[in-house]
Amino acid sequence: MSEFDDALRLKPDGPSAYAAELSDDWRIGGAINGGILLGLLGSALRETLGPGGHPDPLSLSAYYLSSSHGGPASVDTEVVRAGGTVSTAAATLCQDGVDRMRVLATYGDLGRLGGEVHATMPPPGMPPPQECVTLPPPESLDTAFLNRFELRFDPEAPSGDLAMQGWFRLADDREPDVLLLLMAVDVLPPVTFQLGRFGWAPTLELTAHVHAHPAPGWLRVRHESRHFVGGLLQEDSQVWDSTGRLVASGRQLARPPRQSN
Amino acid sequence: MSEFDDALRLKPDGPSAYAAELSDDWRIGGAINGGILLGLLGSALRETLGPGGHPDPLSLSAYYLSSSHGGPASVDTEVVRAGGTVSTAAATLCQDGVDRMRVLATYGDLGRLGGEVHATMPPPGMPPPQECVTLPPPESLDTAFLNRFELRFDPEAPSGDLAMQGWFRLADDREPDVLLLLMAVDVLPPVTFQLGRFGWAPTLELTAHVHAHPAPGWLRVRHESRHFVGGLLQEDSQVWDSTGRLVASGRQLARPPRQSN
Repeated sequence: MSEFDDALRLKPDGPSAYAAELSDDWRIGGAINGGILLGLLGSALRETLGPGGHPDPLSLSAYYLSSSHGGPASVDTEVVRAGGTVSTAAATLCQDGVDRMRVLATYGDLGRLGGEVHATMPPPGMPPPQECVTLPPPESLDTAFLNRFELRFDPEAPSGDLAMQGWFRLADDREPDVLLLLMAVDVLPPVTFQLGRFGWAPTLELTAHVHAHPAPGWLRVRHESRHFVGGLLQEDSQVWDSTGRLVASGRQLARPPRQSN
Repeated sequence: MSEFDDALRLKPDGPSAYAAELSDDWRIGGAINGGILLGLLGSALRETLGPGGHPDPLSLSAYYLSSSHGGPASVDTEVVRAGGTVSTAAATLCQDGVDRMRVLATYGDLGRLGGEVHATMPPPGMPPPQECVTLPPPESLDTAFLNRFELRFDPEAPSGDLAMQGWFRLADDREPDVLLLLMAVDVLPPVTFQLGRFGWAPTLELTAHVHAHPAPGWLRVRHESRHFVGGLLQEDSQVWDSTGRLVASGRQLARPPRQSN
Protein backbone atom coordinates (compact mmCIF):
# COMPACT_ATOMS: atom_id res chain seq x y z
CA MET A 1 0.00 0.00 0.00
CA SER A 2 1.31 3.47 -0.84
CA GLU A 3 1.99 6.07 1.83
CA PHE A 4 -0.80 8.21 0.38
CA ASP A 5 -3.40 5.43 0.49
CA ASP A 6 -2.23 4.57 3.98
CA ALA A 7 -2.79 8.18 5.10
CA LEU A 8 -6.31 8.09 3.64
CA ARG A 9 -7.30 4.83 5.32
CA LEU A 10 -10.63 4.98 7.14
CA LYS A 11 -12.24 2.50 9.50
CA PRO A 12 -16.04 2.54 9.51
CA ASP A 13 -17.26 3.60 12.95
CA GLY A 14 -21.04 3.76 12.58
CA PRO A 15 -23.35 4.36 9.60
CA SER A 16 -21.69 7.58 8.40
CA ALA A 17 -18.67 7.93 10.69
CA TYR A 18 -15.07 6.88 10.20
CA ALA A 19 -12.00 6.58 12.39
CA ALA A 20 -8.70 7.82 10.94
CA GLU A 21 -5.11 7.90 12.16
CA LEU A 22 -3.23 11.09 11.26
CA SER A 23 0.48 10.50 10.81
CA ASP A 24 3.24 12.97 11.66
CA ASP A 25 4.81 11.92 8.34
CA TRP A 26 2.44 14.44 6.76
CA ARG A 27 3.28 17.28 9.14
CA ILE A 28 4.65 20.62 8.02
CA GLY A 29 5.21 23.74 10.07
CA GLY A 30 3.87 22.06 13.20
CA ALA A 31 0.55 20.84 11.77
CA ILE A 32 -0.75 18.08 9.52
CA ASN A 33 -0.83 19.41 5.96
CA GLY A 34 -4.22 20.70 4.88
CA GLY A 35 -3.98 19.01 1.48
CA ILE A 36 -3.68 15.48 2.87
CA LEU A 37 -6.65 16.24 5.14
CA LEU A 38 -8.61 17.35 2.08
CA GLY A 39 -7.76 13.96 0.53
CA LEU A 40 -8.89 12.21 3.72
CA LEU A 41 -12.24 13.98 3.79
CA GLY A 42 -12.58 13.46 0.04
CA SER A 43 -12.05 9.76 0.63
CA ALA A 44 -14.68 9.63 3.40
CA LEU A 45 -17.17 11.39 1.11
CA ARG A 46 -16.41 8.89 -1.64
CA GLU A 47 -17.20 6.09 0.83
CA THR A 48 -20.48 7.84 1.58
CA LEU A 49 -21.56 8.83 -1.96
CA GLY A 50 -19.75 6.29 -4.16
CA PRO A 51 -22.22 3.45 -3.62
CA GLY A 52 -24.96 5.77 -5.00
CA GLY A 53 -23.00 6.06 -8.27
CA HIS A 54 -21.22 9.34 -7.43
CA PRO A 55 -17.62 8.42 -6.57
CA ASP A 56 -15.87 11.59 -7.84
CA PRO A 57 -15.58 15.00 -6.19
CA LEU A 58 -16.72 17.68 -8.67
CA SER A 59 -16.52 20.51 -6.11
CA LEU A 60 -15.26 20.37 -2.56
CA SER A 61 -15.14 23.40 -0.24
CA ALA A 62 -13.14 23.13 2.96
CA TYR A 63 -13.15 25.53 5.90
CA TYR A 64 -10.12 25.10 8.15
CA LEU A 65 -10.90 25.67 11.81
CA SER A 66 -7.87 24.54 13.83
CA SER A 67 -4.67 22.66 13.13
CA SER A 68 -4.35 18.88 13.46
CA HIS A 69 -1.52 16.77 14.88
CA GLY A 70 -0.49 13.13 14.59
CA GLY A 71 -2.90 10.70 16.27
CA PRO A 72 -6.48 9.50 16.10
CA ALA A 73 -9.19 11.60 14.47
CA SER A 74 -12.73 11.03 13.31
CA VAL A 75 -14.68 11.96 10.19
CA ASP A 76 -18.44 12.34 10.23
CA THR A 77 -20.36 12.59 6.99
CA GLU A 78 -23.93 13.57 6.19
CA VAL A 79 -25.71 13.14 2.87
CA VAL A 80 -27.40 16.49 2.22
CA ARG A 81 -29.03 15.59 -1.10
CA ALA A 82 -28.81 12.35 -3.06
CA GLY A 83 -29.62 13.19 -6.66
CA GLY A 84 -29.70 11.51 -10.06
CA THR A 85 -26.54 12.95 -11.60
CA VAL A 86 -24.89 14.58 -8.56
CA SER A 87 -25.11 14.26 -4.78
CA THR A 88 -24.11 16.72 -2.07
CA ALA A 89 -22.73 15.87 1.35
CA ALA A 90 -21.09 17.48 4.34
CA ALA A 91 -18.15 16.20 6.37
CA THR A 92 -16.46 17.19 9.61
CA LEU A 93 -12.97 16.27 10.74
CA CYS A 94 -12.75 16.13 14.51
CA GLN A 95 -9.76 15.55 16.80
CA ASP A 96 -9.50 15.83 20.59
CA GLY A 97 -13.19 16.72 20.63
CA VAL A 98 -12.53 19.82 18.51
CA ASP A 99 -13.67 20.43 14.91
CA ARG A 100 -10.62 20.78 12.66
CA MET A 101 -12.31 21.14 9.28
CA ARG A 102 -15.77 21.41 7.82
CA VAL A 103 -16.45 20.48 4.23
CA LEU A 104 -19.32 20.71 1.75
CA ALA A 105 -18.97 18.79 -1.50
CA THR A 106 -20.85 17.76 -4.60
CA TYR A 107 -19.90 14.42 -6.12
CA GLY A 108 -20.75 12.87 -9.45
CA ASP A 109 -19.25 10.53 -12.01
CA LEU A 110 -16.47 12.16 -14.04
CA GLY A 111 -16.66 9.29 -16.51
CA ARG A 112 -20.18 10.34 -17.49
CA LEU A 113 -19.44 14.01 -18.25
CA GLY A 114 -19.28 15.20 -21.85
CA GLY A 115 -15.83 15.88 -23.28
CA GLU A 116 -16.61 18.74 -25.68
CA VAL A 117 -14.00 21.49 -25.05
CA HIS A 118 -15.33 25.08 -25.17
CA ALA A 119 -12.52 26.59 -23.09
CA THR A 120 -9.68 25.35 -20.97
CA MET A 121 -6.29 26.46 -19.69
CA PRO A 122 -3.27 24.93 -21.42
CA PRO A 123 -0.35 23.97 -19.17
CA PRO A 124 2.42 26.55 -18.80
CA GLY A 125 5.58 25.88 -20.78
CA MET A 126 8.19 24.36 -18.47
CA PRO A 127 11.43 22.43 -18.97
CA PRO A 128 11.03 18.66 -18.36
CA PRO A 129 11.27 17.45 -14.72
CA GLN A 130 14.94 16.44 -15.05
CA GLU A 131 15.82 20.06 -16.01
CA CYS A 132 13.77 21.54 -13.17
CA VAL A 133 15.08 22.12 -9.68
CA THR A 134 14.32 21.07 -6.14
CA LEU A 135 14.38 23.90 -3.62
CA PRO A 136 15.79 23.49 -0.13
CA PRO A 137 13.08 24.12 2.45
CA PRO A 138 13.50 27.07 4.79
CA GLU A 139 15.64 25.93 7.74
CA SER A 140 13.09 26.96 10.30
CA LEU A 141 10.43 24.66 8.95
CA ASP A 142 9.41 21.24 10.24
CA THR A 143 9.27 19.37 6.92
CA ALA A 144 8.32 15.66 7.18
CA PHE A 145 5.57 16.36 4.62
CA LEU A 146 8.12 17.30 1.95
CA ASN A 147 9.56 13.77 1.97
CA ARG A 148 6.28 12.33 0.76
CA PHE A 149 6.63 13.68 -2.79
CA GLU A 150 8.94 15.21 -5.36
CA LEU A 151 8.53 18.82 -6.45
CA ARG A 152 10.64 20.14 -9.32
CA PHE A 153 10.30 23.85 -9.77
CA ASP A 154 10.58 25.64 -13.09
CA PRO A 155 13.91 27.51 -12.85
CA GLU A 156 12.91 29.84 -15.66
CA ALA A 157 9.72 31.14 -14.05
CA PRO A 158 10.01 34.90 -13.57
CA SER A 159 10.87 35.66 -9.95
CA GLY A 160 9.06 38.49 -8.23
CA ASP A 161 5.68 37.46 -9.60
CA LEU A 162 3.30 36.01 -7.04
CA ALA A 163 3.37 32.69 -8.88
CA MET A 164 5.15 29.32 -8.70
CA GLN A 165 5.02 26.31 -10.97
CA GLY A 166 6.57 22.89 -11.15
CA TRP A 167 6.24 19.15 -11.50
CA PHE A 168 4.76 16.99 -8.76
CA ARG A 169 4.61 13.29 -8.05
CA LEU A 170 4.46 11.10 -4.96
CA ALA A 171 7.85 9.81 -3.75
CA ASP A 172 6.69 6.19 -3.91
CA ASP A 173 5.44 6.68 -7.47
CA ARG A 174 1.83 5.99 -6.58
CA GLU A 175 -0.04 7.28 -9.65
CA PRO A 176 -2.43 10.25 -9.44
CA ASP A 177 -6.19 9.91 -9.01
CA VAL A 178 -8.93 12.34 -8.05
CA LEU A 179 -8.06 12.11 -4.34
CA LEU A 180 -4.44 13.03 -5.01
CA LEU A 181 -5.71 16.00 -7.03
CA LEU A 182 -7.35 17.30 -3.84
CA MET A 183 -3.89 17.39 -2.28
CA ALA A 184 -2.22 18.72 -5.44
CA VAL A 185 -4.28 21.93 -5.55
CA ASP A 186 -2.50 23.04 -2.36
CA VAL A 187 0.88 21.34 -2.57
CA LEU A 188 3.24 24.14 -3.61
CA PRO A 189 4.60 26.52 -0.98
CA PRO A 190 2.57 29.71 -0.58
CA VAL A 191 3.38 32.22 -3.32
CA THR A 192 4.39 34.62 -0.55
CA PHE A 193 7.75 32.74 -0.63
CA GLN A 194 8.37 34.98 -3.67
CA LEU A 195 8.24 37.96 -1.31
CA GLY A 196 10.84 36.39 0.99
CA ARG A 197 8.14 35.46 3.49
CA PHE A 198 8.98 31.83 4.20
CA GLY A 199 6.37 31.04 6.81
CA TRP A 200 3.35 28.87 6.14
CA ALA A 201 0.14 30.62 5.10
CA PRO A 202 -2.78 29.12 7.04
CA THR A 203 -5.72 28.42 4.75
CA LEU A 204 -9.10 29.73 5.86
CA GLU A 205 -11.04 28.30 2.93
CA LEU A 206 -10.17 26.21 -0.10
CA THR A 207 -12.47 25.07 -2.88
CA ALA A 208 -11.26 22.43 -5.32
CA HIS A 209 -12.95 21.65 -8.63
CA VAL A 210 -11.96 18.31 -10.14
CA HIS A 211 -12.36 18.34 -13.92
CA ALA A 212 -11.18 14.90 -15.04
CA HIS A 213 -9.48 11.66 -14.01
CA PRO A 214 -5.74 12.26 -14.38
CA ALA A 215 -3.50 10.15 -16.61
CA PRO A 216 -0.52 8.38 -14.96
CA GLY A 217 2.76 10.27 -14.58
CA TRP A 218 3.95 13.64 -13.35
CA LEU A 219 1.43 16.38 -12.64
CA ARG A 220 2.15 20.01 -13.51
CA VAL A 221 1.02 22.43 -10.79
CA ARG A 222 0.79 26.20 -10.88
CA HIS A 223 -0.14 28.52 -7.99
CA GLU A 224 -0.70 32.24 -8.48
CA SER A 225 -2.11 35.08 -6.46
CA ARG A 226 -3.96 37.75 -8.38
CA HIS A 227 -5.26 39.43 -5.22
CA PHE A 228 -3.21 39.89 -2.07
CA VAL A 229 -4.15 42.99 -0.15
CA GLY A 230 -2.96 43.37 3.40
CA GLY A 231 -4.45 40.82 5.69
CA LEU A 232 -5.69 38.19 3.23
CA LEU A 233 -4.22 36.30 0.31
CA GLN A 234 -6.28 34.77 -2.51
CA GLU A 235 -4.40 32.03 -4.30
CA ASP A 236 -5.48 30.15 -7.44
CA SER A 237 -4.04 26.81 -8.48
CA GLN A 238 -4.25 24.63 -11.55
CA VAL A 239 -3.20 21.02 -12.00
CA TRP A 240 -2.52 19.39 -15.39
CA ASP A 241 -1.86 15.71 -16.00
CA SER A 242 0.94 14.23 -18.12
CA THR A 243 -1.17 14.61 -21.27
CA GLY A 244 -1.48 18.37 -20.66
CA ARG A 245 -5.16 18.23 -19.68
CA LEU A 246 -6.41 20.53 -16.92
CA VAL A 247 -7.61 18.01 -14.33
CA ALA A 248 -8.23 20.21 -11.28
CA SER A 249 -8.28 23.79 -10.14
CA GLY A 250 -8.37 25.33 -6.71
CA ARG A 251 -8.83 28.67 -5.08
CA GLN A 252 -8.07 29.49 -1.49
CA LEU A 253 -8.26 32.36 0.93
CA ALA A 254 -5.35 32.33 3.37
CA ARG A 255 -3.72 34.46 6.00
CA PRO A 256 -0.29 35.49 4.77
CA PRO A 257 2.79 34.55 6.78
CA ARG A 258 4.26 37.32 8.87
CA GLN A 259 7.08 39.31 7.29
CA SER A 260 10.37 37.39 7.73
CA ASN A 261 13.41 39.22 8.96
CA MET B 1 -36.71 50.46 2.77
CA SER B 2 -35.10 49.34 -0.49
CA GLU B 3 -36.31 46.31 -2.43
CA PHE B 4 -33.01 44.59 -1.73
CA ASP B 5 -33.19 45.13 2.05
CA ASP B 6 -36.79 44.03 1.96
CA ALA B 7 -35.80 40.78 0.23
CA LEU B 8 -33.16 40.17 2.91
CA ARG B 9 -35.49 40.76 5.85
CA LEU B 10 -35.35 38.03 8.50
CA LYS B 11 -37.58 37.41 11.47
CA PRO B 12 -35.89 35.66 14.41
CA ASP B 13 -37.57 32.30 14.97
CA GLY B 14 -35.54 30.74 17.75
CA PRO B 15 -31.94 31.16 18.95
CA SER B 16 -30.29 30.60 15.56
CA ALA B 17 -33.24 30.30 13.19
CA TYR B 18 -34.92 32.90 10.99
CA ALA B 19 -38.11 33.11 8.97
CA ALA B 20 -37.89 34.71 5.52
CA GLU B 21 -40.37 35.51 2.78
CA LEU B 22 -39.09 34.88 -0.75
CA SER B 23 -40.63 37.21 -3.30
CA ASP B 24 -41.40 36.33 -6.92
CA ASP B 25 -40.00 39.78 -7.75
CA TRP B 26 -36.57 38.08 -7.62
CA ARG B 27 -37.53 35.17 -9.85
CA ILE B 28 -35.77 34.35 -13.09
CA GLY B 29 -36.20 31.33 -15.33
CA GLY B 30 -38.79 29.85 -12.98
CA ALA B 31 -36.77 30.02 -9.75
CA ILE B 32 -35.70 32.60 -7.19
CA ASN B 33 -32.30 33.94 -8.25
CA GLY B 34 -29.37 32.27 -6.49
CA GLY B 35 -27.60 35.58 -5.88
CA ILE B 36 -30.41 37.09 -3.83
CA LEU B 37 -30.51 33.85 -1.81
CA LEU B 38 -26.77 34.18 -1.24
CA GLY B 39 -27.45 37.69 0.11
CA LEU B 40 -30.21 36.32 2.33
CA LEU B 41 -27.99 33.63 3.84
CA GLY B 42 -25.17 36.17 4.13
CA SER B 43 -27.53 38.39 6.07
CA ALA B 44 -28.56 35.55 8.41
CA LEU B 45 -24.90 34.75 9.07
CA ARG B 46 -24.22 38.43 9.81
CA GLU B 47 -27.06 38.31 12.38
CA THR B 48 -25.40 35.24 13.88
CA LEU B 49 -21.73 36.33 13.83
CA GLY B 50 -21.96 40.14 13.82
CA PRO B 51 -22.56 40.51 17.55
CA GLY B 52 -19.23 38.67 18.11
CA GLY B 53 -17.42 41.39 16.15
CA HIS B 54 -17.40 39.59 12.79
CA PRO B 55 -20.07 41.25 10.64
CA ASP B 56 -18.44 40.81 7.21
CA PRO B 57 -18.31 37.73 4.96
CA LEU B 58 -14.69 37.05 4.00
CA SER B 59 -15.48 33.75 2.28
CA LEU B 60 -18.86 32.16 1.68
CA SER B 61 -19.35 28.84 -0.13
CA ALA B 62 -22.84 27.90 -1.25
CA TYR B 63 -24.05 24.54 -2.50
CA TYR B 64 -27.33 24.78 -4.41
CA LEU B 65 -29.58 21.77 -3.87
CA SER B 66 -32.99 22.59 -5.34
CA SER B 67 -34.71 25.66 -6.73
CA SER B 68 -36.79 28.02 -4.58
CA HIS B 69 -40.09 29.74 -5.34
CA GLY B 70 -41.93 32.71 -3.87
CA GLY B 71 -43.29 32.15 -0.37
CA PRO B 72 -42.12 31.41 3.17
CA ALA B 73 -38.71 29.88 3.82
CA SER B 74 -36.50 29.37 6.85
CA VAL B 75 -32.80 29.85 7.53
CA ASP B 76 -31.01 27.88 10.21
CA THR B 77 -27.52 28.88 11.28
CA GLU B 78 -24.88 27.14 13.38
CA VAL B 79 -21.71 28.71 14.74
CA VAL B 80 -18.96 26.23 13.91
CA ARG B 81 -16.06 28.15 15.46
CA ALA B 82 -16.09 31.53 17.18
CA GLY B 83 -12.55 32.90 16.98
CA GLY B 84 -10.63 36.05 17.81
CA THR B 85 -10.19 37.52 14.33
CA VAL B 86 -12.55 35.30 12.29
CA SER B 87 -15.52 33.05 12.96
CA THR B 88 -16.97 30.24 10.87
CA ALA B 89 -20.62 29.25 10.62
CA ALA B 90 -22.95 27.08 8.58
CA ALA B 91 -26.39 27.96 7.25
CA THR B 92 -29.21 26.07 5.57
CA LEU B 93 -32.06 27.52 3.53
CA CYS B 94 -35.14 25.34 3.76
CA GLN B 95 -38.51 25.62 1.99
CA ASP B 96 -41.45 23.19 1.91
CA GLY B 97 -39.44 20.93 4.22
CA VAL B 98 -36.68 20.57 1.61
CA ASP B 99 -33.11 21.93 1.82
CA ARG B 100 -32.57 24.49 -0.95
CA MET B 101 -29.01 25.62 -0.13
CA ARG B 102 -26.23 24.78 2.26
CA VAL B 103 -23.56 27.33 3.08
CA LEU B 104 -20.26 27.44 4.96
CA ALA B 105 -18.76 30.85 5.62
CA THR B 106 -15.98 32.61 7.48
CA TYR B 107 -16.73 36.11 8.71
CA GLY B 108 -14.46 38.80 10.07
CA ASP B 109 -14.18 42.58 10.18
CA LEU B 110 -13.10 44.05 6.83
CA GLY B 111 -12.38 47.33 8.57
CA ARG B 112 -9.60 45.68 10.57
CA LEU B 113 -7.69 44.15 7.64
CA GLY B 114 -4.42 45.71 6.50
CA GLY B 115 -4.54 47.72 3.28
CA GLU B 116 -1.05 47.05 1.88
CA VAL B 117 -1.46 46.07 -1.80
CA HIS B 118 0.85 43.27 -3.02
CA ALA B 119 -1.32 42.26 -5.98
CA THR B 120 -4.78 43.01 -7.25
CA MET B 121 -6.78 43.03 -10.46
CA PRO B 122 -7.47 46.45 -11.99
CA PRO B 123 -10.93 46.96 -13.48
CA PRO B 124 -11.29 46.33 -17.21
CA GLY B 125 -11.42 49.42 -19.39
CA MET B 126 -15.06 50.13 -20.27
CA PRO B 127 -16.98 53.12 -21.62
CA PRO B 128 -18.97 54.97 -18.90
CA PRO B 129 -22.45 53.57 -18.06
CA GLN B 130 -24.26 56.10 -20.29
CA GLU B 131 -22.27 54.78 -23.30
CA CYS B 132 -22.90 51.12 -22.42
CA VAL B 133 -25.95 49.16 -23.54
CA THR B 134 -28.82 47.28 -22.03
CA LEU B 135 -29.53 43.93 -23.62
CA PRO B 136 -33.05 42.64 -24.20
CA PRO B 137 -33.57 39.40 -22.26
CA PRO B 138 -34.26 36.24 -24.27
CA GLU B 139 -38.00 36.09 -24.96
CA SER B 140 -38.43 32.69 -23.42
CA LEU B 141 -37.19 33.82 -20.02
CA ASP B 142 -39.30 34.73 -17.01
CA THR B 143 -37.50 37.92 -15.99
CA ALA B 144 -38.95 39.70 -12.91
CA PHE B 145 -35.43 39.62 -11.42
CA LEU B 146 -34.07 41.82 -14.22
CA ASN B 147 -36.31 44.72 -13.12
CA ARG B 148 -34.55 44.89 -9.75
CA PHE B 149 -31.34 46.43 -11.16
CA GLU B 150 -29.69 48.09 -14.10
CA LEU B 151 -27.05 46.29 -16.13
CA ARG B 152 -25.16 48.20 -18.82
CA PHE B 153 -22.98 45.95 -20.94
CA ASP B 154 -19.72 47.00 -22.51
CA PRO B 155 -20.54 47.16 -26.25
CA GLU B 156 -16.85 46.99 -27.15
CA ALA B 157 -16.11 43.71 -25.37
CA PRO B 158 -14.94 41.13 -27.91
CA SER B 159 -17.77 38.76 -28.78
CA GLY B 160 -17.07 35.07 -28.97
CA ASP B 161 -14.95 35.08 -25.83
CA LEU B 162 -16.54 33.33 -22.86
CA ALA B 163 -16.64 36.64 -20.99
CA MET B 164 -19.08 39.47 -20.26
CA GLN B 165 -18.62 42.75 -18.45
CA GLY B 166 -20.70 45.73 -17.53
CA TRP B 167 -21.96 48.21 -14.95
CA PHE B 168 -24.41 47.20 -12.25
CA ARG B 169 -26.57 49.06 -9.75
CA LEU B 170 -29.87 48.45 -8.03
CA ALA B 171 -32.89 50.02 -9.77
CA ASP B 172 -33.90 51.93 -6.61
CA ASP B 173 -30.35 53.29 -6.25
CA ARG B 174 -29.74 51.55 -2.92
CA GLU B 175 -25.96 51.81 -2.52
CA PRO B 176 -23.73 48.70 -2.51
CA ASP B 177 -22.55 46.95 0.66
CA VAL B 178 -21.00 43.57 1.36
CA LEU B 179 -24.37 41.80 1.12
CA LEU B 180 -25.03 43.26 -2.32
CA LEU B 181 -21.57 42.05 -3.37
CA LEU B 182 -22.74 38.49 -2.64
CA MET B 183 -25.43 39.01 -5.26
CA ALA B 184 -23.12 40.88 -7.65
CA VAL B 185 -20.69 37.98 -8.07
CA ASP B 186 -23.45 36.07 -9.89
CA VAL B 187 -25.55 38.82 -11.46
CA LEU B 188 -24.54 38.73 -15.13
CA PRO B 189 -26.10 36.18 -17.48
CA PRO B 190 -24.08 32.98 -17.86
CA VAL B 191 -21.18 33.47 -20.26
CA THR B 192 -22.69 30.64 -22.33
CA PHE B 193 -24.96 33.40 -23.76
CA GLN B 194 -21.88 34.16 -25.88
CA LEU B 195 -22.30 30.73 -27.46
CA GLY B 196 -25.94 31.45 -28.32
CA ARG B 197 -27.12 29.26 -25.45
CA PHE B 198 -29.67 31.53 -23.77
CA GLY B 199 -30.91 29.22 -21.03
CA TRP B 200 -30.03 29.66 -17.37
CA ALA B 201 -26.99 27.77 -16.06
CA PRO B 202 -27.90 26.19 -12.71
CA THR B 203 -25.13 26.74 -10.18
CA LEU B 204 -23.91 23.69 -8.29
CA GLU B 205 -21.42 25.58 -6.11
CA LEU B 206 -20.41 29.19 -5.74
CA THR B 207 -17.73 30.62 -3.46
CA ALA B 208 -17.54 34.38 -2.93
CA HIS B 209 -14.59 36.19 -1.40
CA VAL B 210 -15.35 39.71 -0.21
CA HIS B 211 -12.25 41.87 -0.22
CA ALA B 212 -13.43 45.30 0.92
CA HIS B 213 -16.43 47.49 1.71
CA PRO B 214 -17.54 49.00 -1.60
CA ALA B 215 -17.74 52.77 -2.19
CA PRO B 216 -21.12 54.20 -3.27
CA GLY B 217 -22.01 54.25 -6.96
CA TRP B 218 -21.99 51.85 -9.89
CA LEU B 219 -20.20 48.51 -9.58
CA ARG B 220 -18.23 47.07 -12.48
CA VAL B 221 -18.74 43.33 -12.89
CA ARG B 222 -16.89 40.85 -15.09
CA HIS B 223 -17.65 37.17 -15.59
CA GLU B 224 -15.36 34.85 -17.51
CA SER B 225 -15.03 31.13 -18.04
CA ARG B 226 -11.53 29.79 -18.42
CA HIS B 227 -12.65 26.16 -18.21
CA PHE B 228 -15.79 24.82 -19.83
CA VAL B 229 -15.48 21.22 -20.88
CA GLY B 230 -18.59 19.26 -21.77
CA GLY B 231 -20.85 18.81 -18.83
CA LEU B 232 -19.57 21.48 -16.42
CA LEU B 233 -18.81 25.17 -16.62
CA GLN B 234 -16.39 26.98 -14.28
CA GLU B 235 -17.07 30.71 -14.18
CA ASP B 236 -15.00 33.37 -12.42
CA SER B 237 -16.32 36.80 -11.53
CA GLN B 238 -14.82 40.02 -10.24
CA VAL B 239 -16.56 43.08 -8.84
CA TRP B 240 -14.98 46.54 -8.63
CA ASP B 241 -16.45 49.56 -6.89
CA SER B 242 -16.70 53.09 -8.31
CA THR B 243 -13.13 53.87 -7.15
CA GLY B 244 -11.78 50.95 -9.21
CA ARG B 245 -11.00 48.79 -6.20
CA LEU B 246 -11.55 45.00 -6.45
CA VAL B 247 -14.16 44.47 -3.73
CA ALA B 248 -15.27 40.87 -4.37
CA SER B 249 -14.52 37.85 -6.50
CA GLY B 250 -16.45 34.69 -7.10
CA ARG B 251 -16.01 31.34 -8.71
CA GLN B 252 -18.76 28.91 -9.52
CA LEU B 253 -19.28 25.48 -10.98
CA ALA B 254 -22.47 25.28 -13.02
CA ARG B 255 -24.28 23.02 -15.41
CA PRO B 256 -24.37 24.69 -18.82
CA PRO B 257 -27.72 25.40 -20.46
CA ARG B 258 -28.75 22.99 -23.18
CA GLN B 259 -27.85 23.98 -26.74
CA SER B 260 -30.48 26.42 -28.09
CA ASN B 261 -32.03 25.83 -31.46
